[in-house]
Amino acid sequence: MLRKILIANRGEIAVRVIRACAEMGIRSVAIYSEADRHSLHVKKADEAYSLGSDPLAGYLNVHNIVNLAVMTGCDAVHPGYGFLSENPELALTCARRGITFIGPNAEVIARMGDKTAARQAMQKAGVPVTPGSPGNLNSLDEALACAAEIGYPVMLKATSGGGGRGIRRCDDPAALRHNYERVISEATKAFGRAEVFLEKCVVNPKHIEVQVLADHHGHCIHLFERDCSIQRRNQKLIEIAPSPQLDDAQRQYVGGLAVLAARSVGYTNAGTVEFLLDSDGRFYFMEMNTRIQVEHTITETITGVDLVEEQIRVAAGLPLRYRQDQIQRRGFAIQFRVNAEDPKNNFLPSFGRISRYYAPGGPGVRTDGAIYTGYHVPPYYDSMLAKLIVWALEWDDVVSRGHRALRDMGVYGVKTTIPFYQEILRHPDFRAANFDTGFLESHPELLNYSTKRRREDIASALAAAIAAHAGL
Amino acid sequence: MLRKILIANRGEIAVRVIRACAEMGIRSVAIYSEADRHSLHVKKADEAYSLGSDPLAGYLNVHNIVNLAVMTGCDAVHPGYGFLSENPELALTCARRGITFIGPNAEVIARMGDKTAARQAMQKAGVPVTPGSPGNLNSLDEALACAAEIGYPVMLKATSGGGGRGIRRCDDPAALRHNYERVISEATKAFGRAEVFLEKCVVNPKHIEVQVLADHHGHCIHLFERDCSIQRRNQKLIEIAPSPQLDDAQRQYVGGLAVLAARSVGYTNAGTVEFLLDSDGRFYFMEMNTRIQVEHTITETITGVDLVEEQIRVAAGLPLRYRQDQIQRRGFAIQFRVNAEDPKNNFLPSFGRISRYYAPGGPGVRTDGAIYTGYHVPPYYDSMLAKLIVWALEWDDVVSRGHRALRDMGVYGVKTTIPFYQEILRHPDFRAANFDTGFLESHPELLNYSTKRRREDIASALAAAIAAHAGL
Repeated sequence: MLRKILIANRGEIAVRVIRACAEMGIRSVAIYSEADRHSLHVKKADEAYSLGSDPLAGYLNVHNIVNLAVMTGCDAVHPGYGFLSENPELALTCARRGITFIGPNAEVIARMGDKTAARQAMQKAGVPVTPGSPGNLNSLDEALACAAEIGYPVMLKATSGGGGRGIRRCDDPAALRHNYERVISEATKAFGRAEVFLEKCVVNPKHIEVQVLADHHGHCIHLFERDCSIQRRNQKLIEIAPSPQLDDAQRQYVGGLAVLAARSVGYTNAGTVEFLLDSDGRFYFMEMNTRIQVEHTITETITGVDLVEEQIRVAAGLPLRYRQDQIQRRGFAIQFRVNAEDPKNNFLPSFGRISRYYAPGGPGVRTDGAIYTGYHVPPYYDSMLAKLIVWALEWDDVVSRGHRALRDMGVYGVKTTIPFYQEILRHPDFRAANFDTGFLESHPELLNYSTKRRREDIASALAAAIAAHAGL
Repeated sequence: MLRKILIANRGEIAVRVIRACAEMGIRSVAIYSEADRHSLHVKKADEAYSLGSDPLAGYLNVHNIVNLAVMTGCDAVHPGYGFLSENPELALTCARRGITFIGPNAEVIARMGDKTAARQAMQKAGVPVTPGSPGNLNSLDEALACAAEIGYPVMLKATSGGGGRGIRRCDDPAALRHNYERVISEATKAFGRAEVFLEKCVVNPKHIEVQVLADHHGHCIHLFERDCSIQRRNQKLIEIAPSPQLDDAQRQYVGGLAVLAARSVGYTNAGTVEFLLDSDGRFYFMEMNTRIQVEHTITETITGVDLVEEQIRVAAGLPLRYRQDQIQRRGFAIQFRVNAEDPKNNFLPSFGRISRYYAPGGPGVRTDGAIYTGYHVPPYYDSMLAKLIVWALEWDDVVSRGHRALRDMGVYGVKTTIPFYQEILRHPDFRAANFDTGFLESHPELLNYSTKRRREDIASALAAAIAAHAGL
């Protein structure tokens, strides 16, 4: 078994990995920028090392991170999500230095990170993909000819993109002409590679993704699906497991597709195969994420499987603890990404000091966060403060529980997406489990919530704080 | 359905009931003494009313509480646990004033509160009880004769006792002579009634209790058992569901006994039937608690059933949502009562200001608490700050998770039982699921934990607090 793991990440996901290490008796090593000196992951790890004053450079420096792992006697590195998690260079450098990388090998990461190569691999394996260009596009003319063949609307995508970036929808040839150079330029800037390709645009699909686990002994299983259709500009906000919009036959079918996809590329460790589900009930492979995802928590909640622990076990060479028929799901789980943003002000980030934080609690409530009363949210990173996960046996109950837990969760000092989520949960279409990726865009009225109650909360929290302080 | 519920309690259990109300769309009304003005239950309820400056009198005043319920338009009262929860007067007064009491009727509360009447009812129903006096004792001579017949050691108990109070073990006639007047005097002071009775003492039994639910339509089910053998002086500290010490045949048998017990007295609402399990595998009825219990959370965690919601539904006259065969359990749950006490100093209460509180989180962790950073723990009530509940599919994993979550939970400013619990979880007998009610007494070395690590934690928390404040 591994003895000591360096976590090449920060905040919430670093805390999550530290917790898994603690339960497994593995020593954890945190890294941090000076801006993160008071972050919870620094406090909770067994050891923590500063990466210097630049808020980002340290977290992205493959060479330094692997060096630090070697120097501190670590036998493994966990990349978390974001940062270097899908950079094959980290996996490769770890391998060269004799450090276990907790994820798939560099070759698989690179292959699935190249969207056209991934599409080609899936087509070869018999996993359905949307109609599109056979490979990367060589010119605007080729793009126009391809789009004419598959029919508008089309999606123009960066081959190295991901996470909803480097994507533009084109409804007609004029739009394609307008966007072609733009996406190339964006892709070059964001990912350092200029390649683009075309896909038929599936209009307002459901986003259904399947969690898979594969070991080095030929075992590969899925842990059911997640419905991530509640998105804003391709960014997931609320995730649900299992999808309340699938029946069991669809669930079994898409689970099987995901295992086929993972097996076909020799996948190991935890991964997610993302699909679009169109209004005619057809699934299309979208992409594979070769890492743990933000929303892995809801799969853990319905199956009872600790995915980070399984990642570590698989990386250590152990076989999976579960066969497919031992993966049982129970009830429904919803995750809310509680972001420090002001939904009413175009989701403007709202950084600053958390003047007071009350964690929610009670039955069916889990939180994964890295905030506390007095924590200063640094402006350099993404705006997610915490993940709130709720669970109940029935769909109606988990929605009511979500609404209650959002009310229960008190975050003061910054604006958050909490009241926006409460509004979504009150919408009859959401309660009826009837939504697709166009849901938020087609319901702008969800932003018209009153902030009155919220202001009362703040006033009463302030009064309580003052009184508690005075009573000291 | 009920529309508005007054919660005749405080702190953690009041917050628990408020959460159930919020999920059911029911308005909640809190009551509070001035000492509790800044308690979380006051903040979370939809309405809150002061009971005046006496820290206890208000919570114990049946007449005023029912009056307030009527005046504020409540249609029901939830008693929580402790305070008036097992006082038939509250149930009776509610009934007289047309208010629904969320619990069984006054007659059943009174009958099960009278320990000799309860024993007699159980014997009649065919539920095994320990050998003992046929009813209350009329004299010391009668006690000595009875004890000679059933054999020493015997337990001398107050008929109106409960919660581990008014009980003395007598190993020989001299001890019985010594204790007889003492227990009568204690019982008179604590419960206002002088009756006592005798039971054969089961030496170091396991404490196994079964959660039952019964409605007004003739349905009665059990929700498996809890193992509460980890006790100190008859006070439960750590509770486990299901018991890792029972096999499935025992589990089914004791569940059936509990349903038989509840049915035999016409029980309605949530209740707990407590049994002793001796070293020969025999179960004996001990007592029935006619209310929600502190440890109900672990039953919720393994079954997914919200017990407080079921209490409310049953009180409203609805049938149970579940048949016996629909109650499925999954995995193991452990609850830790995090008390503000210093285990190293004879568990001396440690009240004061919570200078900093970090709620634990991550997979399989639930908290039910009423504390927050800056909260001043008042010295008038019991010392429980919060309940930490952990869950995992397997016994070994839930023990590791418990240890991690206890480390994760940061309570600063008062001493707590957290390090003592960590020590218990490290003990090989606990890990091997081999313990009885004598466990803590026979392992005094569990108190010899080092407080060094804890001190480091405090230092780092202080440093973080100072820095976070300076960075404002």
